[in-house]
Amino acid sequence: MSKIKIGIVGYGNLGKGVEEVIKENQDMELYAIFTRRKLHEISQKDTNVKVESISNIEKYIGKIDVMILCGGSATDLPVQGPDICKHYNTVDSYDNHTKIYEYYKKMNKGAEPSGNISIIGGGWDPGLFSIIRAMSESYLPNGKDYTFWGRGVSQGHSDAIRRVKGVKNAIQYTIPIDEALYRVRRGEDPVLKTRDKHIRECFVVVEEGEDRIRIENEIKTMPHYFENYETIVNFIDEDELKEKHSAMFHGGYVFRSAVTGGENKHIIELALRTQSNPEFTASILLSYARAAYRMNKEGQKGAKTVYDVPVSYLYELDREILIKELL
Amino acid sequence: MSKIKIGIVGYGNLGKGVEEVIKENQDMELYAIFTRRKLHEISQKDTNVKVESISNIEKYIGKIDVMILCGGSATDLPVQGPDICKHYNTVDSYDNHTKIYEYYKKMNKGAEPSGNISIIGGGWDPGLFSIIRAMSESYLPNGKDYTFWGRGVSQGHSDAIRRVKGVKNAIQYTIPIDEALYRVRRGEDPVLKTRDKHIRECFVVVEEGEDRIRIENEIKTMPHYFENYETIVNFIDEDELKEKHSAMFHGGYVFRSAVTGGENKHIIELALRTQSNPEFTASILLSYARAAYRMNKEGQKGAKTVYDVPVSYLYELDREILIKELL
Repeated sequence: MSKIKIGIVGYGNLGKGVEEVIKENQDMELYAIFTRRKLHEISQKDTNVKVESISNIEKYIGKIDVMILCGGSATDLPVQGPDICKHYNTVDSYDNHTKIYEYYKKMNKGAEPSGNISIIGGGWDPGLFSIIRAMSESYLPNGKDYTFWGRGVSQGHSDAIRRVKGVKNAIQYTIPIDEALYRVRRGEDPVLKTRDKHIRECFVVVEEGEDRIRIENEIKTMPHYFENYETIVNFIDEDELKEKHSAMFHGGYVFRSAVTGGENKHIIELALRTQSNPEFTASILLSYARAAYRMNKEGQKGAKTVYDVPVSYLYELDREILIKELL
Repeated sequence: MSKIKIGIVGYGNLGKGVEEVIKENQDMELYAIFTRRKLHEISQKDTNVKVESISNIEKYIGKIDVMILCGGSATDLPVQGPDICKHYNTVDSYDNHTKIYEYYKKMNKGAEPSGNISIIGGGWDPGLFSIIRAMSESYLPNGKDYTFWGRGVSQGHSDAIRRVKGVKNAIQYTIPIDEALYRVRRGEDPVLKTRDKHIRECFVVVEEGEDRIRIENEIKTMPHYFENYETIVNFIDEDELKEKHSAMFHGGYVFRSAVTGGENKHIIELALRTQSNPEFTASILLSYARAAYRMNKEGQKGAKTVYDVPVSYLYELDREILIKELL
């Protein structure tokens, strides 16, 4: 049987993650990697795979079955996605919750008339966590849900600190507050404010001669990003940042806490811990690439989400094996 | 909008659970309850709902959209299911893992030519737990999964004890062993034998004058059910059994513990605790009843499992609301 031919668009942490984990999927092969950077600047993991300038992406029409879009949600995906989905099936892990419907509409407009499938938001949140939220709310309509993230690096918050004047480099960890977790797990259905759920811990490298008190204050009062949280700011040097804060672990929790019959409590908890956020996200994206390929072969088209994909489309082996072995 | 008309087949704990939790689903109404028992023996929760002898079930063709089959997997469903699915869309929580493929084939043979949808195994295991197992194995092919059940009553094991000579009544709790859970959660990927994962604790009422030592020995050495477990047998009287061991709580855990890139560990854990196994199972069945109704309206037919149903078919509100609000 011929393998599903995968292209990677964007060769940062996530793109490199896809390159790594595709080996664990027997039914797929990596066909090419597309980048905006100059080709001589690329240090490739596996030199057998062709690296191409993104400007040549249309040369591969008909050769690549699914493109994995590995750019960022802020500026890359909204530009690249609606264009690439006119020529290829795509999957991505677009993760801006407030703009995802707008992105969905744009992708649908590109993919549907072209007869392609574009699965958006196919990471772990949005993605796996979204499935748990919607499935458990469907099962148990009369209840509350809670999502916690961490402990792990928030790229968006790290970037926000780096934009503060005098900051050379920074990493921000999102840390769920144990007491809040325990209360939800015990079924107390607490009302939790933003600052009750997560702590934000920052490791910051400053330029020589900058005022640390001013920087700490600017971080802690930054609207939207930090002002509503308990924020801890640690100043360290560049070597310590590289040495101790380069790991890409992450995690999180989704809870549904609900009642039926007026008195019977039910709690569903999904907990995730991953030592590599990019490789875990890449792994999920490849499952949805398989689904996109299969749905497209059946004649389906347009933008889809994880809510539209039956589990049997994700699984490498036949549906009948799933029923026999895993049901 | 007209509501989805639901029928309940079998009026035991699960059927009563469906009757209770259907109120939490705004888009459904309970149309009739079908029972094999004599109608005057039935004590109904809500006397506004019609209770019918199962022999009259065909009178409701065209009036009921989905039948929830609430009989047992051992003897009821294999007889009732393949017949009822010729006339109605059905959902059930068939739970005999070793015979489920055989049951699937029988249901498909009945439902497909009749143009009906039959979703089988739509409880929590099979069901919710099956989804987590298959989805996380799809995401992370290079790993192991673990399922633990409990603490909760196993109906099959309680029945097995009741068949021992001299036993008047019995309840058996399946209890996951904490040490095994912790080792899996820590990512140790332990090799666990049957007796390392669960303890079986029994509360047994004996007939007067019976030999407790013989009964305890017969239980503990019972092939398949108890011989491979650490089994605790407690003798109590009927009053204590009724008073302290009538609660229908249950729970369980599904883990996927996997590696990518040769070194990065990922652990997905789903934990469930429910104070009412029948009401939780009933709640899930109603979500799949909604899905069966929608799939059938689209022209789909035949036997399906939880692996075939996209999350958007389970959710009461529109798919676009799901994308906007929950993704």
